Amino acid sequence: MKVAKFGGSSMASANQLIKVANIVKDDASRKFIVVSAPGKRYKEDTKMTDLLIDLGKAYINQLPYEHQLNIIMERLTEIVTELDLPRDLLEEFAVSLKEVQKLHPNKESLMDAVKAIGEDSSAKMLSAYLNKIGIHASYVNPKEAGLILSDEPGNAQILPESFDKIRELKEREGVLVIPGFFGYTKEGKLVTFSRGGSDITGSIVAAGVNAELYENFTDVDSVYSVNPAFVPNPKKITKLTYREMRELSYAGFSVFHDEALIPAYHAKIPVAIKNTNNPTAEGTLIVAERDLNGQVVTGIASDTGFCNLFVSKYLMNREIGFGRKLLNIFEDEGVSFEHAPSGIDNMSVIFRERNLPREKEHVIIERIKNELHPDTVSISRGIAIIMVVGEGLVNSIGVANQATEAFTKAKVNIDMINQGSSEVSMMFGIQASDLECAIRSLYQSYFVEKSVVK
Amino acid sequence: MKVAKFGGSSMASANQLIKVANIVKDDASRKFIVVSAPGKRYKEDTKMTDLLIDLGKAYINQLPYEHQLNIIMERLTEIVTELDLPRDLLEEFAVSLKEVQKLHPNKESLMDAVKAIGEDSSAKMLSAYLNKIGIHASYVNPKEAGLILSDEPGNAQILPESFDKIRELKEREGVLVIPGFFGYTKEGKLVTFSRGGSDITGSIVAAGVNAELYENFTDVDSVYSVNPAFVPNPKKITKLTYREMRELSYAGFSVFHDEALIPAYHAKIPVAIKNTNNPTAEGTLIVAERDLNGQVVTGIASDTGFCNLFVSKYLMNREIGFGRKLLNIFEDEGVSFEHAPSGIDNMSVIFRERNLPREKEHVIIERIKNELHPDTVSISRGIAIIMVVGEGLVNSIGVANQATEAFTKAKVNIDMINQGSSEVSMMFGIQASDLECAIRSLYQSYFVEKSVVK
Repeated sequence: MKVAKFGGSSMASANQLIKVANIVKDDASRKFIVVSAPGKRYKEDTKMTDLLIDLGKAYINQLPYEHQLNIIMERLTEIVTELDLPRDLLEEFAVSLKEVQKLHPNKESLMDAVKAIGEDSSAKMLSAYLNKIGIHASYVNPKEAGLILSDEPGNAQILPESFDKIRELKEREGVLVIPGFFGYTKEGKLVTFSRGGSDITGSIVAAGVNAELYENFTDVDSVYSVNPAFVPNPKKITKLTYREMRELSYAGFSVFHDEALIPAYHAKIPVAIKNTNNPTAEGTLIVAERDLNGQVVTGIASDTGFCNLFVSKYLMNREIGFGRKLLNIFEDEGVSFEHAPSGIDNMSVIFRERNLPREKEHVIIERIKNELHPDTVSISRGIAIIMVVGEGLVNSIGVANQATEAFTKAKVNIDMINQGSSEVSMMFGIQASDLECAIRSLYQSYFVEKSVVK
Repeated sequence: MKVAKFGGSSMASANQLIKVANIVKDDASRKFIVVSAPGKRYKEDTKMTDLLIDLGKAYINQLPYEHQLNIIMERLTEIVTELDLPRDLLEEFAVSLKEVQKLHPNKESLMDAVKAIGEDSSAKMLSAYLNKIGIHASYVNPKEAGLILSDEPGNAQILPESFDKIRELKEREGVLVIPGFFGYTKEGKLVTFSRGGSDITGSIVAAGVNAELYENFTDVDSVYSVNPAFVPNPKKITKLTYREMRELSYAGFSVFHDEALIPAYHAKIPVAIKNTNNPTAEGTLIVAERDLNGQVVTGIASDTGFCNLFVSKYLMNREIGFGRKLLNIFEDEGVSFEHAPSGIDNMSVIFRERNLPREKEHVIIERIKNELHPDTVSISRGIAIIMVVGEGLVNSIGVANQATEAFTKAKVNIDMINQGSSEVSMMFGIQASDLECAIRSLYQSYFVEKSVVK
């Protein structure tokens, strides 16, 4: 039995829903279907979820909302009409879009409930269409499915008791279409995961029913070994491990919602990334373990927007608790950091720039000066992080040398190297302006020349 | 005005004292002389301080002490006799060695007071000999000199009010000979610095009198760029910065007492490492800033006896406070660590093996398992740390590549790279068994081939 999750682009239009239905039809083991809200039909289009957020805001601020409501109903009407589905579906949608206001007097609850209508109507339309083409399918509300979540609107977490309840779904007949992104608290209140959370629903259902495979249908043929914006037609990754995926997704590989992998990871369920628009493409399989096949590096990820706070103090390493006091200042100021590598008499703290706004920078530097009396303290911004990721990295002589050689060839200065704390990655910090150059050189070295590594 | 400090080997015998006196005579600006206790005359010899510690133990445990007392008096007698110094010096030493027991009823105080007799008698003998050869010199007791220390027997720290008092010494005439290693609390109790603390006294006096130079006379011509045990006749370092010296001394370059550099560093006084047995050799100068002269790497230090605790947990970096909780466990257990580099979902903690005894290992691993629920936790021992040190490292393209290439040539697997947290060093972790090979290859690359670095 498989769980297949279809993302926003797969649900964006009648035409896309037909592709989805064919994919479901093609493989009888695709029993559990989880769907996102309709996404963009073209680049400038607006996602259904964003339309719903606008409507929710209008409701909350008691502003006119007819315009938003009309746009939403138009999109739903278009799909229902083109698929020739029963018109009473539309009436049902219209009613829920209006009644949601009365049912959820609390603002946060109201927003979650409005957002959830996107996935909910997607599931109802797909279920209706599957039945229309002769597949026995039922819409299953997440409450009925057993998705019991913590009471954290907009950022809910699954509760462990859910999984037993979800397992019971296996007894039901036919294809089950479940809306992603939301569930219910123990008290029965609708709450959503964080944005993009349909991936999480799919992963939870896959773990609950102990699926043989969790298929995640999106609009790319596979995960690429490097960002195609930097290197044309890069090598596709056909198989990688959960932890490789994690390291890659940290630095810019955003195929997948980070949290979404957890339930599948714990239940050791393989995850396939597939393309709704090209379902016969091999795709990418995420597994617990894999053969190395001689390829040491699996992918090269990168992300910009980092900054580095550098503190030095003579004989720092004899001053007990210096590092802890430094990190406590960030905690006090509500600033979260990424890494804190230390030398003998110095410490670097790496942040995402969005977590260290300039107005906080001054406060933090003053506190460090006054409380820790360092010799120097400075911040450098505009740093890019590159992750070279691969299960083969451990115990490979020369693999770091290949990277540093690639940076040297590209005439790129390396600000930071962090190797060894992860078994499957090496992390480099460089100036963001050097990023494209560096990535091309690394790709050339690891994937084109593949110089000898033992 | 210069401060010259002479170490144990320079004070070991009459012959050595004559060399010292000539060095003092040679340069009229050598006004402040700080001395250690007599050190070893030959490899199997016992240092005066160790003889005194044995005597102190006998006193404290009320055991027979005549034997220890005799050995000590024999060594002092030998020097006094060979230098033909006044015999009443010996009587003075004999009295202080016996009376110290009565003057210090408290055990810790007694041990500090016994140990201090080594430096004290050194200073008195040198002062007498200088006068004998026609140099106007006076012995100055540390109390008179103004060395006011915290009340921490065996590990005292200088108190800030000392420096003003020490400055007054400039007004005194002639050469001043001050015993190193000890001082007095505000209440007048004799206390010593940590072992090797004569370097500290010298540095404090240099800062107090604002010397143009602090000369540290020892028994090596200079600091070498790499351990001569691994590479025969390595390049000498003629000039390096305080922070280069610090990074090198962290990993095995033990020319100097770590703490000793602080007062000189804060007062920006250059420190010269010189050889009593070859005083015309250029030596090594430690300064605040220096020209780079095209040499990017100044020295390569290494040390063994490290271990690495590795913890991984899926989505660790989303678990707020994970790192802090991990480090708190070590603090709880009284185990101090060196570095804690982190990846995305993993963290390494580097210890000196002596700080993580095997009986603690089990306790700590169990606590990590029970309190943090990681996916994996493991310890690997037998790790060597290599520090590649140089002011030129920052902004040098290719310098990391040169290192990784050297490791690859030596067929050495790199377990850890930490670059960028220090401006003047790169840190590598490898298996201790690979150390010699790796060091030779690094030396070859940075000092012999010196391949092009921009």
